[in-house]
Amino acid sequence: MKTELLPEAGKGRVVALCGGVGGAKLALGLSRLVGADLSLVVNTGDDFEHLGLSISPDLDTVLYTLGGIANKELGWGRADESWNFMQALAHLGGEAWFQLGDRDLALHVERTHQLRAGRSLTDFMAGAARAHGITASILPMSDDPIRTTLTTSEGQLPFQRYFVERRCAPTVHGIAFEGASSARPSAPVVEALQAPDLRAVILCPSNPFLSIDPILATPGIRALLEQAAAPVIAVSPIIGGAAVKGPTAKIMAELGVPATSRAIAQHYEGLLDGLVIDDVDAGERGTIDGPVHVTPTLMKTDEDREHLAREVLRFADSLRTAMANPTRAVAR
Amino acid sequence: MKTELLPEAGKGRVVALCGGVGGAKLALGLSRLVGADLSLVVNTGDDFEHLGLSISPDLDTVLYTLGGIANKELGWGRADESWNFMQALAHLGGEAWFQLGDRDLALHVERTHQLRAGRSLTDFMAGAARAHGITASILPMSDDPIRTTLTTSEGQLPFQRYFVERRCAPTVHGIAFEGASSARPSAPVVEALQAPDLRAVILCPSNPFLSIDPILATPGIRALLEQAAAPVIAVSPIIGGAAVKGPTAKIMAELGVPATSRAIAQHYEGLLDGLVIDDVDAGERGTIDGPVHVTPTLMKTDEDREHLAREVLRFADSLRTAMANPTRAVAR
Repeated sequence: MKTELLPEAGKGRVVALCGGVGGAKLALGLSRLVGADLSLVVNTGDDFEHLGLSISPDLDTVLYTLGGIANKELGWGRADESWNFMQALAHLGGEAWFQLGDRDLALHVERTHQLRAGRSLTDFMAGAARAHGITASILPMSDDPIRTTLTTSEGQLPFQRYFVERRCAPTVHGIAFEGASSARPSAPVVEALQAPDLRAVILCPSNPFLSIDPILATPGIRALLEQAAAPVIAVSPIIGGAAVKGPTAKIMAELGVPATSRAIAQHYEGLLDGLVIDDVDAGERGTIDGPVHVTPTLMKTDEDREHLAREVLRFADSLRTAMANPTRAVAR
Repeated sequence: MKTELLPEAGKGRVVALCGGVGGAKLALGLSRLVGADLSLVVNTGDDFEHLGLSISPDLDTVLYTLGGIANKELGWGRADESWNFMQALAHLGGEAWFQLGDRDLALHVERTHQLRAGRSLTDFMAGAARAHGITASILPMSDDPIRTTLTTSEGQLPFQRYFVERRCAPTVHGIAFEGASSARPSAPVVEALQAPDLRAVILCPSNPFLSIDPILATPGIRALLEQAAAPVIAVSPIIGGAAVKGPTAKIMAELGVPATSRAIAQHYEGLLDGLVIDDVDAGERGTIDGPVHVTPTLMKTDEDREHLAREVLRFADSLRTAMANPTRAVAR
């Protein structure tokens, strides 16, 4: 972190790296606080082509969540959804393992059409965000294809086959991000991380291995975080030895990583200026190097989301002040 | 027509050439009478790509009509349809001039996916017909792209832009079938027209210019009709100087063709062994060369459809008997 040109406390660009559900919740909280000052760098490692359609599960979850139309019961897709397409598709003998709602489908069909016509994913998502009245920037980590692939007890599996079709049942031995080495971060991602008024960089409580690592594997992004002119804060996705949702804890166990916030801090070693952990894990505080902020991190309501966002920003702002001292607070 | 090997009256392969709505009604009547003995050669000149999806309006109308799920109120698409996809698409700013129902969309998405994977349109439609419990063969006239394009008062227009977006308002000066010269009829079309037990070839009361002509423009099909070992019968789409539906009469006027059944007979000159005209046009009978059968041709109910189909088949069977005399009954 450089010390010159610190923006006024409570102002400036906030960049948050996130995946789907868990990350999108904090993203919503942040967007309620800082609106257009928020740039979300979203995992596209889960993107895949299905039925010839380009599907971006994490981007869409973020879009629907910030647009206020996410399906909270399902945890994916749109609220007030209908399923007549799927029914007719199944009748035709089409692949029915991945559910696509009728309204949701519009996003996939139009995106596929626009991408084929040469528009970038970044540009398409900007238009979709505008259409949904969202002022925050929803940025794919890259416009180049990066595909998360798992080495499992059932062989190599593309992410969605593992996650949706096999419901995370296979044991994970390794995770690769195909295409990452030749991908570039999109221009607005680089711009956001280099913003002169950068206030904070937040690693949302998404799955570190499946949602944040693909972003960090996009060439250039890790270095931009290391050089960021603002505190880099992670919110631990682990609460009391478990993940709130999804396969995070299961995968950590399979990879031989303890399901602790300390392990999360170690996973992000060299990147963080601070870590936010849940109240129930307050006892872990002493085991973690560097600044730790303890606060409730379970987000059940929009108020919870906003509360956690506020806590994270305050923590970042306090670190920024402390870091006027040029010695980096946390080893990085 | 050859005289050897005439199939038993009331048996044998029936081939019907048809477009969408009007043609599909007679196709339904025929399918109720002869079931799996029916081969429908369907116009694909109206096919187009929209939102990146391969859409085949006439094939789909025939599929839905024979499958018993056609939307009779709209005259296109599926019954019990929902429109949530279109609503969401419009919200995203996507092209909304061509309506795609949620259930209907499954056919387009799956077809596009299968065609991109290398499956033929013929093969895909055979699967779709099976899925809808249809025993008749629904055959695209060709697996090669043939695109009907109109020269109009507003310039060159692809068929769907003229028909749907401009609602047939522009004046038509000419009609072309792009790609026709290099297209081949699909193998099952050739097989059906050369069937050893061919009973009749029927030109359905579809628009001769927009629905039947593209089929006849597919290299080889006209010759197969000329050489057919069974009577070739057309059902006039004109009733009392008007077409039942669609722009047939308007286009005939714009092309300087009188809206009469006589003009229909002349349009198909050299192809027909007989023409079926409506009761109200019985007075035209004397103006038409060759055998004419007069019967109600307006099809409002399924019983009407079946009745007309029965009349057409009886007429064909009677001509086949008469044509045991090797002199062709109608000049062709």
